[in-house]
Amino acid sequence: MTAPETRSATLLISCPDRRGLVAAVTEFIAARSGNILHLDQHVDADENVFFMRVEWDLNGFAIEPEAVDAAFAPIATQFGMTYDLRFSWNIPRMAVFVSKESHCLYDILARVQSGEWRVHIPVIVSNHPDLGEVVSKFDIPYVVTPVTKDTKPQAEAQQMALMEQYQPDFIVLARYMQIISADFVTRYPNRIINIHHSFLPAFIGAKPYQRAHERGVKIIGATSHYVTADLDAGPILEQEVIRVNHRDSVADLIRKGKDVEKLVLARAIRYHLDNRVLVYNNKTVIFA
Amino acid sequence: MTAPETRSATLLISCPDRRGLVAAVTEFIAARSGNILHLDQHVDADENVFFMRVEWDLNGFAIEPEAVDAAFAPIATQFGMTYDLRFSWNIPRMAVFVSKESHCLYDILARVQSGEWRVHIPVIVSNHPDLGEVVSKFDIPYVVTPVTKDTKPQAEAQQMALMEQYQPDFIVLARYMQIISADFVTRYPNRIINIHHSFLPAFIGAKPYQRAHERGVKIIGATSHYVTADLDAGPILEQEVIRVNHRDSVADLIRKGKDVEKLVLARAIRYHLDNRVLVYNNKTVIFA
Amino acid sequence: MTAPETRSATLLISCPDRRGLVAAVTEFIAARSGNILHLDQHVDADENVFFMRVEWDLNGFAIEPEAVDAAFAPIATQFGMTYDLRFSWNIPRMAVFVSKESHCLYDILARVQSGEWRVHIPVIVSNHPDLGEVVSKFDIPYVVTPVTKDTKPQAEAQQMALMEQYQPDFIVLARYMQIISADFVTRYPNRIINIHHSFLPAFIGAKPYQRAHERGVKIIGATSHYVTADLDAGPILEQEVIRVNHRDSVADLIRKGKDVEKLVLARAIRYHLDNRVLVYNNKTVIFA
Amino acid sequence: MTAPETRSATLLISCPDRRGLVAAVTEFIAARSGNILHLDQHVDADENVFFMRVEWDLNGFAIEPEAVDAAFAPIATQFGMTYDLRFSWNIPRMAVFVSKESHCLYDILARVQSGEWRVHIPVIVSNHPDLGEVVSKFDIPYVVTPVTKDTKPQAEAQQMALMEQYQPDFIVLARYMQIISADFVTRYPNRIINIHHSFLPAFIGAKPYQRAHERGVKIIGATSHYVTADLDAGPILEQEVIRVNHRDSVADLIRKGKDVEKLVLARAIRYHLDNRVLVYNNKTVIFA
Repeated sequence: MTAPETRSATLLISCPDRRGLVAAVTEFIAARSGNILHLDQHVDADENVFFMRVEWDLNGFAIEPEAVDAAFAPIATQFGMTYDLRFSWNIPRMAVFVSKESHCLYDILARVQSGEWRVHIPVIVSNHPDLGEVVSKFDIPYVVTPVTKDTKPQAEAQQMALMEQYQPDFIVLARYMQIISADFVTRYPNRIINIHHSFLPAFIGAKPYQRAHERGVKIIGATSHYVTADLDAGPILEQEVIRVNHRDSVADLIRKGKDVEKLVLARAIRYHLDNRVLVYNNKTVIFA
Repeated sequence: MTAPETRSATLLISCPDRRGLVAAVTEFIAARSGNILHLDQHVDADENVFFMRVEWDLNGFAIEPEAVDAAFAPIATQFGMTYDLRFSWNIPRMAVFVSKESHCLYDILARVQSGEWRVHIPVIVSNHPDLGEVVSKFDIPYVVTPVTKDTKPQAEAQQMALMEQYQPDFIVLARYMQIISADFVTRYPNRIINIHHSFLPAFIGAKPYQRAHERGVKIIGATSHYVTADLDAGPILEQEVIRVNHRDSVADLIRKGKDVEKLVLARAIRYHLDNRVLVYNNKTVIFA
Repeated sequence: MTAPETRSATLLISCPDRRGLVAAVTEFIAARSGNILHLDQHVDADENVFFMRVEWDLNGFAIEPEAVDAAFAPIATQFGMTYDLRFSWNIPRMAVFVSKESHCLYDILARVQSGEWRVHIPVIVSNHPDLGEVVSKFDIPYVVTPVTKDTKPQAEAQQMALMEQYQPDFIVLARYMQIISADFVTRYPNRIINIHHSFLPAFIGAKPYQRAHERGVKIIGATSHYVTADLDAGPILEQEVIRVNHRDSVADLIRKGKDVEKLVLARAIRYHLDNRVLVYNNKTVIFA
Repeated sequence: MTAPETRSATLLISCPDRRGLVAAVTEFIAARSGNILHLDQHVDADENVFFMRVEWDLNGFAIEPEAVDAAFAPIATQFGMTYDLRFSWNIPRMAVFVSKESHCLYDILARVQSGEWRVHIPVIVSNHPDLGEVVSKFDIPYVVTPVTKDTKPQAEAQQMALMEQYQPDFIVLARYMQIISADFVTRYPNRIINIHHSFLPAFIGAKPYQRAHERGVKIIGATSHYVTADLDAGPILEQEVIRVNHRDSVADLIRKGKDVEKLVLARAIRYHLDNRVLVYNNKTVIFA
C-alpha cells in the first residue's frame, strides 16, 4: 500500500490484448520521469482482453496532474483502451444504506473514524429508524426512507433525490434488506456495493442462513458484489467463509456470519476505494 | 483419537430427546466398570432429537464384548433408541470407485499403506482402464466395468455383483464420474461416500469448475457427502475451500481444487471409519 | 447456543479421571428432573484429568437455583472435583483496558451495544486520553491513568483502586500496550484476557509485525490468552491467521492484523462469557 | 498458468530500483514482437530493490531462443540487473531426500505421475531403507545412505557424490530428518527446499508437534523454506495452518500436520518449478 503522503496517479486500463501494451504505458510514464510504484497486469487469454493497473509517483513527474489525461488520451485511442485515471488526494464520497442490523455499519464507521480509510460519508440512508442512535454518535446525516409494499416507489424516488443532493461517488448497501430497482441500479453501474450473507451462488435471495442450516452445510460464507439488475448475480468483489457444525443453530450461523459479512464488505470497499477493481463479463479483476 | 492398541467399544445413539438419557447410558457403562474414553452428545432442540457417541475402554469391563449388545438392548427399548455398536478391532471393508483422475485414489492408497487408516480395500472398480497401472503397484483387484449410454444397466449389474462378491461395508466414489442409480444407492444407505468438486449447494452437477470460473467466484471448494437418489443432495460430511483469483484459469481451478478434493474426501472417510457420523433429516451430526 | 430466555445452570468441572464421573453428574441432574441442554467432556489421558461442562434447563428442576450448590457439593467432595456453577441470568462485569488503538475497543462496544453479548462494562481504563472521544459516545466511564517509567507503580495502584471501585469479574486488555505487574496479575488468575498481535509463540514481546515482516513469513496471526506473570506465555484461548505476501509492508501487516486481532479477542471474550473455558497446565480446554 | 504446449520464455529480474525499468524490459520484448503472457513486478521501497517476472510467448518472437540471452545482456548491464532466463520446455531435475515418513514422498510422486508437474526425479536418497518399497513402485533409483553420529560425514560425502552423479537442478527434503551441513548447503544456494513441521519461527528445531501440544496452541502449521546454514531460518516459500483443539493428542497433531506439510511442500515446489521465486534479504518474492 502506498503511504498516504505520497502524491500518486493510478491508471486502470482495459482493452483488446495485443503486443506492446505494457511497453506503451510504461514508456508514457518513463518518458516523463515517473517512477512506477505498483504495476499489475492481466490477460484473459480466452477473451483476449488486457487489464492493467499502474500507480506512479507524481514527484518529479514532468507534467502537471491536470495535464495527464490529455497526454495519455492518444495512447488510449491508439490501443482502444478504456481507462480510469485517479489521483491519491481525491477523497471519494460513499453513501451508506442500512436497515436494522448494525454490525456492518459500526465496522465501516470505526474504519473511517480511525483513519484506516480515506473516504467521506455524506449521508446514511435507512428504511428503519433503529440505527439512528448509532449514527448520531458520529457526525453524519441519517435519513429514514420507510419502505412498504405500497410506498416502495416513493421511497426510492426519495433515495434518488438524496443521492442527487449528496452526490456520492459510490453507494454501499451495508445489510440494506431491500431490493434496489433496475432503474436505480443503472444509475450507478459498478458503483453500488452489496454484501450478501451467503457464499454465492449458493443461497441466492432471502434467508440464506436458514437455508444453509436446513441443507446442513459445514461452511458458511458471505459475498460482496457490485449490484446489477439481477438479484445477487453481480460481479463478485470478495468472499470469505467460516466453519460451522451440527451444534450451530440458525442463530449461531447468523452470529458467526456477521463477523464474516463485515470483513468481506470492508475488503470490497477497500478494493473499490483503492481503484483496484476492473469489471468485465460480470466478473472482476482485482489487483490486490 | 484412541490409541490403536486400546480395546474399546463405541455406541452411536439417536432417539427422541427426554430427561435422563445421558445418565442412563453412562450408568450402563459405569455399573459394569467401564471407563469412558470419549463422550459427545447433541440435542437438536428444534427437532427434539438426541444424539450421542460414547466410546469406552473394554479393559476391566464386567461383561464380554459379545454380551454388550444384549445387555444394552433393554435401555435402547426403554428410550426408543436407534443405536450402532462397534468394536475397535473391527476393520471395515471399503470398496473404491474411480474414473480417470488419480489424485483421490493415490491419496487414499497412501493413507492406507502408511497405516494412517485401519481399513481394508477389497476391490477398486472403474469405468476406465487408466488407473489400473497405479493400482497394480498395490495389491488390490482393479476391475473395469466400462459404462456407455447403452451399457449402463449392465455395467451397474456387474458392479452390484462385484459388491456381492467383495462385501464392502461401505463404498467410496473417489471422483467416479458416473451417476449411481437409485436402485444401487438404496442398497447402501449412508454407506456411499462421494466427493463433489464444488462447494455445495453451489454448482450441483457437471463441470463445477467451469461454472465457478464463469461466475467469477473468489473461493472454490469441495464437498463430501453420502450419496442419495437426489444428485449431489445427500447429507454433507465435510467441506473445504481454497481462494482463487482472476489469474486462475479453469485449469488452475481444477489443479487447486484437486488438493481440496482429496483432503475433504480423506476427512469424510475418516469420520465414517471412526464411527463419528449420525444422519438425520438429510444432515449429519459429526462427533469430530 | 442457548436461547437467552432459557433459565439454565452451567457446571464446569475438573478432577482426577476415574470411572463413573459422567454418570454421577448426569444422575444428579436427572434425579431432579433436569433436562441437559449441552454436555461436553474431555479426558486428558496423559495427565489423567477429567473435564466436563454441562448446562441444563432449570424449568421444572426439582430444587431452587440457590440450593443447587449445596446439593452438588457432596458429589464434588466424593470425586475431588473443582467446579464452578453459574446461572444464565448472571451478567458478568468486564473492565476494559486500552491504549491508543481503537479497533478492538470499537468492536467490543459494537457487540455490547447490539446485544450480541450479555455483559456489563463498568469502566474503561487507558494510559492515554486518545480514545476518550470514542467512549464518550457510549455511556461508560473512561479513566485515564497515564503511565511513564517513573509513574508506573502509581498508575497501577490507581488501576487497582479502580478495580476495587468497579468490581469487574474479569478484565480485557484490548490492545493495552503496557505490561501488567505480577502483583496485579495474581489478583485475577485466568481472569485477565489479552490480545497479542502475533501467532504465539512466534514473536513474543514488542513489535511483532515488524519482526514478522523482517522474517518474511507468509501468514501472520493474533493470539488471545489469559495473562500470567510470564510475558505472552499464558494459556491460549484463541488464535487466528491471515495470509500476507511480499507486497505487504509493515503498515499492511498492521492493517490486516487488526482485523484478526479484533476477531480473535471477540471469540476469546465470548468463550469466557459463556463459561466455556477450563485451564490446566497453562493450557485451555474450550468447550466451544 | 500457461498451457504446456505454449513455447514461452521467463525472465526473473532483480536490481536497484530506478525509473524506466519496466519500460526497458517490455520494450525489449515488444520491439521483437513478443506477446507478454504474464508480467508481475514489485518494488521494496524500504530497500529500494526492484523485482520483476515476465513471461512471453516465443511464437512469432523475432529472435531465436538461443539468442535471447545475448540480446538482453546489454539491458541487464545498463541497469545492474541480476536475471535468470528460462524456457518452458526445460524440464528441471529434482532430487528428493527422505527418511521414514512417506506422506510427502507419496504426494510428490503422485503429482509427478499424474503429469501435474513437469519435472524429472533422477534419484531419491534416504537415510533409511523403509520407503524403498514405495519407491520401487515407481521407476526411480532409491539410494540408502545410512546416517549415524559417527558416519554422518561419510554419508554426506556419499550424498554429494550422488548429486554429482545425478546432477539435480534442485533438491527437496521431503521430511528428511537430518541436518544438512553448511558445506552441502552452500553448494545449492536457494536450491534446497525443506518442509518444516511447524509454523516458523515458532518451534524451530526438533519435535515441533510435541512442543505445540505442550504450549496449547489452537492452530498448527507447516513451513517450506530454502535451506541455509541456519537451522530452519532460510527464506520462507510457503506456510499453511490447520486448527487444533484440546481433544487433539500429539498423535492427532502429527496426523493433521501431515496433510498440511505435503500441501505446503507441494506449493513451494511448484513455485520453484515455475520460476516464480526471487530471494533477497533472506526473504522471498513469490510471483504467484
